[in-house]
This record gives sequence, structure tokens and C-alpha cells, in this order.
Amino acid sequence: MIRKILIANRGEIAVRIIRACAEMDITSVAVYTDADRHSLHVKKADQAYSIGPDSQAGYLNVHRMVNVARAAGCDAIHPGYGFLSENPQFAAACAARGIRFIGPAPEVIRAMGDKVEARRSMIEAGVPVVPGSEGNLAHVDEALALAEQIGYPVMLKATTGGGGRGIRRCDDPTQLRGNYERVRSEATKAFGNTEIFMEKAIVDPRHIEVQVLADSHGDVVHLFERDCSIQRRHQKLVEIAPSPQLSEPQRAYVGELAVRAARAVGYQNAGTVEFLMDHEDNFYFMEMNTRLQVEHPVTEMITGVDIVQEQIRIASGLPLRHRQEDISRRGFAIEFRINAEDPKNDFLPSFGRITRYFAPGGPGVRTDGCIYTGYHIPPHYDSMCAKLIVWAPDWEGLIRRARRALGDIGVYGVKTTIPYHLEILGTEAFAAGRFDTGFVQAHPELTGYSVRRPVRELAAVIAAAIAAHKGL
Amino acid sequence: MIRKILIANRGEIAVRIIRACAEMDITSVAVYTDADRHSLHVKKADQAYSIGPDSQAGYLNVHRMVNVARAAGCDAIHPGYGFLSENPQFAAACAARGIRFIGPAPEVIRAMGDKVEARRSMIEAGVPVVPGSEGNLAHVDEALALAEQIGYPVMLKATTGGGGRGIRRCDDPTQLRGNYERVRSEATKAFGNTEIFMEKAIVDPRHIEVQVLADSHGDVVHLFERDCSIQRRHQKLVEIAPSPQLSEPQRAYVGELAVRAARAVGYQNAGTVEFLMDHEDNFYFMEMNTRLQVEHPVTEMITGVDIVQEQIRIASGLPLRHRQEDISRRGFAIEFRINAEDPKNDFLPSFGRITRYFAPGGPGVRTDGCIYTGYHIPPHYDSMCAKLIVWAPDWEGLIRRARRALGDIGVYGVKTTIPYHLEILGTEAFAAGRFDTGFVQAHPELTGYSVRRPVRELAAVIAAAIAAHKGL
Repeated sequence: MIRKILIANRGEIAVRIIRACAEMDITSVAVYTDADRHSLHVKKADQAYSIGPDSQAGYLNVHRMVNVARAAGCDAIHPGYGFLSENPQFAAACAARGIRFIGPAPEVIRAMGDKVEARRSMIEAGVPVVPGSEGNLAHVDEALALAEQIGYPVMLKATTGGGGRGIRRCDDPTQLRGNYERVRSEATKAFGNTEIFMEKAIVDPRHIEVQVLADSHGDVVHLFERDCSIQRRHQKLVEIAPSPQLSEPQRAYVGELAVRAARAVGYQNAGTVEFLMDHEDNFYFMEMNTRLQVEHPVTEMITGVDIVQEQIRIASGLPLRHRQEDISRRGFAIEFRINAEDPKNDFLPSFGRITRYFAPGGPGVRTDGCIYTGYHIPPHYDSMCAKLIVWAPDWEGLIRRARRALGDIGVYGVKTTIPYHLEILGTEAFAAGRFDTGFVQAHPELTGYSVRRPVRELAAVIAAAIAAHKGL
Repeated sequence: MIRKILIANRGEIAVRIIRACAEMDITSVAVYTDADRHSLHVKKADQAYSIGPDSQAGYLNVHRMVNVARAAGCDAIHPGYGFLSENPQFAAACAARGIRFIGPAPEVIRAMGDKVEARRSMIEAGVPVVPGSEGNLAHVDEALALAEQIGYPVMLKATTGGGGRGIRRCDDPTQLRGNYERVRSEATKAFGNTEIFMEKAIVDPRHIEVQVLADSHGDVVHLFERDCSIQRRHQKLVEIAPSPQLSEPQRAYVGELAVRAARAVGYQNAGTVEFLMDHEDNFYFMEMNTRLQVEHPVTEMITGVDIVQEQIRIASGLPLRHRQEDISRRGFAIEFRINAEDPKNDFLPSFGRITRYFAPGGPGVRTDGCIYTGYHIPPHYDSMCAKLIVWAPDWEGLIRRARRALGDIGVYGVKTTIPYHLEILGTEAFAAGRFDTGFVQAHPELTGYSVRRPVRELAAVIAAAIAAHKGL
């Protein structure tokens, strides 16, 4: 059994992992850059090591991280999300130094990070993928012929692309001709790889992802799905479990697809298989995230399973504690990312000192955060400073309780996404449980709230939306 | 449906009720004495009314409370617990002024408040009571004969007694002779009623209580039991749901008894039937609390039912939302009363300013509190300033998570019961799930912790207790 874990991360997810360690009698070791000296993860860990003044790149230094783990006598490293969590070199470096990496094998991380290879594995496993080319497109004529076959709009993508670069949508043959050389040139410049491929563009899909757990004994289970369709520029804002948009047969189907996908690549540890769901209710494999997700708490709320503890158990070589038929769910859960950003100013980060923080409480409310009264949010990192997670037995109760909890939490001194989240709850589409990845763009009015508008007034808007949906 | 509620209470329970109102689109009205001007319930309510400078008796003034409710246009009053919650005159005064009292009818409150009458109702309903006299004892010889029959030790009790006064234990006939006139004289002096009765003394029982919900349409359900055996001088310190000491047949039996008890007295709204469970596993009716309990959140955690919302729905005349067979439970929950007291100094209240407050978080953790950084706990009221509630899928996981959460919460500026709770978790008896109302007295060493002892060291003690119990 793992006895001492270095947490190669910061902020709320480091605190989350420290909590799991504390419950398992595992010694937790934090690392921190100079900018994070006063961060909560440093206060809460059993031990903490400085990784120096490089605030930007500190948490990305593979060798320093492994060296600190060795020096501290850690037998495992938890990478959290972001930073080194999907870096196969890091996973390999851990293994090379005799430290367990709490995640899948380096070759699985690598394989799932390559879009074309992941796509090919899924096709082989019988998991539906977005219709498109099997690999590199050899010539623009091949691209044009394929586009006729699968239907416009289509996406041209760099095989090794990412972060929104090397991707273009083509609505007709003229656009396709124009973009073909453009994407190839971007791919070469940005990624040093000329390979590009094509996929059918799924317009405003639902983002449905399935949480899986896979142990080292060949067992794989899923913990149902999350709906992360509420996104802004491909950044998730709100996540829900289970999706209010799936029927029970659809839920069973997509869960089974995810298990098949994980089995096909010999996956181990916790992972997430992401699917696009189009408006004809077809599911397409999008990608697999080979790590813990920001939004894992909503799954924990409905299933009662502690995903971080399961990760540590799996990495220790223990078998899964649950068979698929033992995993049940109850009610609905929603997570709001409380970002230090100003939604009214194009979500510009709003770093600075938290002058007052009031934690929310009461039934069905969980917080995972790294803020406290007096905390100074450093400008070097992600603007997400807390996650507000709410559970209720049914969808309408969830919206009501979420509204209450968003009014309950108080973060002063910086601008946050809290009022924006309240506006999301106040839309009829959301109250009805019908939304897709086009939601944020389709609702530009959501940033139109008055900063002086009391939460009480927003509550009335949300109550009206619920009533409208119910036809009261 | 009720539209506007006056909350005739303060502190954490007032905040709890405000949260339920917010989720139900009901306007909440707080009241506050001068000492409570800066209390959280005043900040969180939709409206707040001063009830003047009398900090001691302010929340006990029936007529002022009803007048404020009328003036504010409230159609209902929620009494919370303590203060006026079990005062039949208050319930009657509400009814007389056309305001719904969120609780049972005045005559039910009165009947359950009279120990002998409550006992008689239960005998009639076939609910077991502690063996004893049917009513007033006429003569010491009658007492001696009855004691021979039911067996020593016995308790002599004033019929209208309370708060530990007018109660004496008698271990043999000599003590009984001596106490007989003493209790009668105490009863006369303290309560103006000469009636006394006798019950067999149940030595160090388990305190098992069942949460019931009863609507105005004749339906009654139970939400399983709570184990509140960890008490100090009849004050509950820790509460658990379900009891780790009950088998499934015992759980079903005591649940059914509670429903029968509630039906027998025509109960409406949420109520709690308290039982003593002796070491031969017999259950005896002790009393019925005709109000919301401090410890209701543990039941909410395992069932997912919002008891305060159910109270409001019932008082609005709506039928119960759940049939008995629809109510399921999951895992275990525990509540720790975070009191501003110094356990090392005989639990002396430790009022004052909260210089820093760190809310706990992460999976399975709920707080119901009224504290924040900078809050000044007024000396006029109960020392309980927060409740830490923890859920986990199994008993061992609960102890591990509870330990973590007690280390996670930070209350500075006053002494609290937090380190004492950690010591409770560290006993082998508690880890094994075996304890009774004699637990605190049997463990005087629990106050022997060092105030400088880090939480980490206590964690090792608890880990050892868990290991010892598992025979590792």
C-alpha cells in the first residue's frame, strides 16, 4: 500500500488530494513555488517542499518534481489535473525512479494524447467516432471527396494539434479548398508535423463524458456520466451528473461504450471518456482524459464513491471495491466553477486579495476550494479558486438549491463568476434541462446583470424560469 | 402554500430554516435581540425585525413574536428547536392569530410534554415503556412494593419535572425510603405539583431516536434512527445515523414503533420518538420531541430528504412526498456539535470573537453554522456555534473522514469541543461502534489532550484505534 504521496499540483485539487491522503493514513507532501507560499495546500499538507521562485514553470519541472519526491521519501506521486498530469515523460520518469505514478501507464497517456491513434483504437474497439478520414489526408481532392461523402460542415484538424490551434471549420467545398493548405501550414509551423485529418463537424453537440475506474486486475467499471455542455470557449463552466438530457437506455449505452473504450487501450486508474452527442442523439467518441477531472465531485455526490481514494487504491495494486452492479446513483449534482474573473469584462481574470470569504453550508452543499479570508490569489495560475458543488434529489430541487447556495457563498475583494452562474440558472433552457455547447454563445444577455442587483432579484428570475418550465 | 415565514429563533438553526425558505421561494423573516445584531441569521434572511434589548428572554416572548409575525405579514412561524418550540401556548397563540405554527397541534405538544400522559398513551398504543407505576404513587409502601416487583435500581420522578430536577435514583429499599419524601418535596417546590412516579432505572442505555414525518392526511413515515448515546450530562455531543449498534430487524422494529407512537397521538409534522435500548437489546419509549432536532442533518445525509422543507410542506397542508417504501438510506453520517467551550475546564463556555474561521470542505462534509471570521459569539445563548456533519459509505470510512474533517475545520479565538471530538474518535469502543450513555463518564481521559498536541498526533491515535478494532 502506498504510504507517502507527493502532490505535484497546487490550489484546490492539491487540497482535495491531501484530504484523501488524510483519510487513508497516507502522509501528504505538498510542493510550492514562491508565489504559493501562503496557499492552503501548503498549510494543509503533512509536509511541504519549496520548488523555488519560478512561479510560471515551477509545477511543470519533471526532474525537480521527481527529485523532491525521492528526497522526501515518497513512494507515489499524484499529478492532479493540468500541469504534468497528461505528460507521458513525467509518468515514465516516475517509474524510472521507482515512484508510482497515480494514473495510467505512460504509453496509454501517449496513445490517448494522439488524436489519430486514439481514433483508430476506438474504431477497432467498435466505439463510434465522428465520421472522417482514417488518418492523414494525402491531397485536397481526397479531402473534397470525403467531405461530399460525410456531409458538410467538416473540420480540418492537425493530427498533433491542441488548444484550439490547427483546427478550421469548412462549410462548403470553397472553404475546404481555402483551408486545406492553411491548416497544413499551421500544423507545420505550430507542431512541426504536416499531418492533417478531417472529421464531420458536429454542430452544437451535448458534451457527455463518462467516469471510469480500471484496476490492475483487469476490472473496469463506470460511474455514470457527466454533462459538461455549458462551456465558454471550450472551458467548462458548469458540470452536472447525471445528464438531465439522457434516457436510461442512452445512459446504459454510453456507460458501456466508455468501459469498452477503457478496456480496448488497457487503461488503468481513473479516467474519463468524452463523447459528443448530436441532436439526433448519436454518440461519438471525442477523447479520453487520462487523469482526474476538475468536475469529478459531481460523480462523487451521486454515487458516494471517493474517486481520489479509488485512484490511490488502484495505484497500490488493490482490486476495485465495486462491481458495476454495486454502483448506484441518487439524485442530481451540479458543480459551479467559481473563477476569479469578471464575466462583464470578457471574463478577464480578477486576481487579488480575498477580503472576506463566507463559506456556504446546509443540506446538499459541498465546497472544494483553496480560498480563505485574507488569501491573495496569485496572478500566475488558473483563475479558478473554488468549486461549489450542490446535490438534490431531483432536477428542479437542484436548481432551487443551487440558486440558494450561490447566494449563500460570499467571495469579496475580487470579481467572480457567481453572478453569471445565477443568470445561467435563470434561463428557461437550463431550467428545462435542455442545453448544448452553443448555450453560452446563444445567451449573450447573461453578462447583462447589474453588479448592484441583489441576489434576491436574481432568485425571482430563476423562480420564474422554473415556473415557466413547469407551465405553472 | 405558505409564502412568508417568521423564524422565531437564532443562530445556526435560524440559518438552516432560512436556507430551506430560499429553496422554496418563501420569504424569510428573522428576528433578533440587540446582542444578535451582527448574527448571520440576520444577514441571510430576506427581512429582519428587532425584538429589542432583552437578550436573555427576547426569543421567549410569545406575544411579541406573534405580533412581529402579524406586522410583517407572515402566514407561518417556524420555531426551530429550544426557545418556544415546545411551548403549547405559543402554538395556540399562533393559531388564534391566524398564523400557521410549523409543528404539531398545541394539544399534542402538551400531551407529549406530560411524562405520565405520554407514557399512558404509549402503553395504550402497545409501545413498550420502561416498567414502572401507572401514575402518581399514593404512599411509600406502594413504591416499595412496586420496586420489589420491577427490580432495583429504580428512578423516582416528578410528573411535571424536567432539566434533571425532581429525579432521583434508588439502588435499594433504604435509598427509596429516603428519596421518596425528598422527591415529592422537590416536585412541590420546583413545579408546584406533588405527583411523583417510578420507573425502572435503565443503566447506561443506548439512546436511539427515530425521525418521523406525519402529514395532515393521516400518513406517517419514519426516516430511520439516530444514535445519540454520546452525551455529557444529558447533553448530546455526537449524533449518528443510522446506529452502528442495531441489526436490520431491530432497525425495522424500532422504526415501526415510532410510527405507531406518532399515529397514536395524532401527530402532525416532523417529530422524534426517543427510545432507551438496554444491554439486553430491549427498547423502551422515553419521550417524543415535538419539533425539529439539532441532529436532524445526519438523517438528511443518509436519506437525501430535506426535513425542514418537509415540515413546511406538511404545515402547508400538502401530502408527504414519500411513501415508507420509497425512503432509502445510504452509508453513515455523524454530527459533531462544535461548542464554544473548554473541555479541559469542565466544558466552561468560551464566548468571544472568532479571530479566524476556516470552513472544512471536500467529499462528504457539511457544515451548518453561524460563525464567520470576526463574529463575536454573544454570551447570552447556547455555546453551540456550528455543527460539522460528515458522511461516508461505511463505518470505518466515516471515522476516517470525520477525523480528517475535524482537522480541516479551523475555529480560532475561542476554545471549542473540536479536540475532544477527536479524542472520542480515538477510543477503541467508538471505533468498534460500541458505546452507551455512560461513555463520556467512563472516559475521563478524553480531556487529557494537550492543547499543543497537533491534530496529526491525534490522527495517529485514531488510526491505531481503527487498526486495533480490525485486529490488524
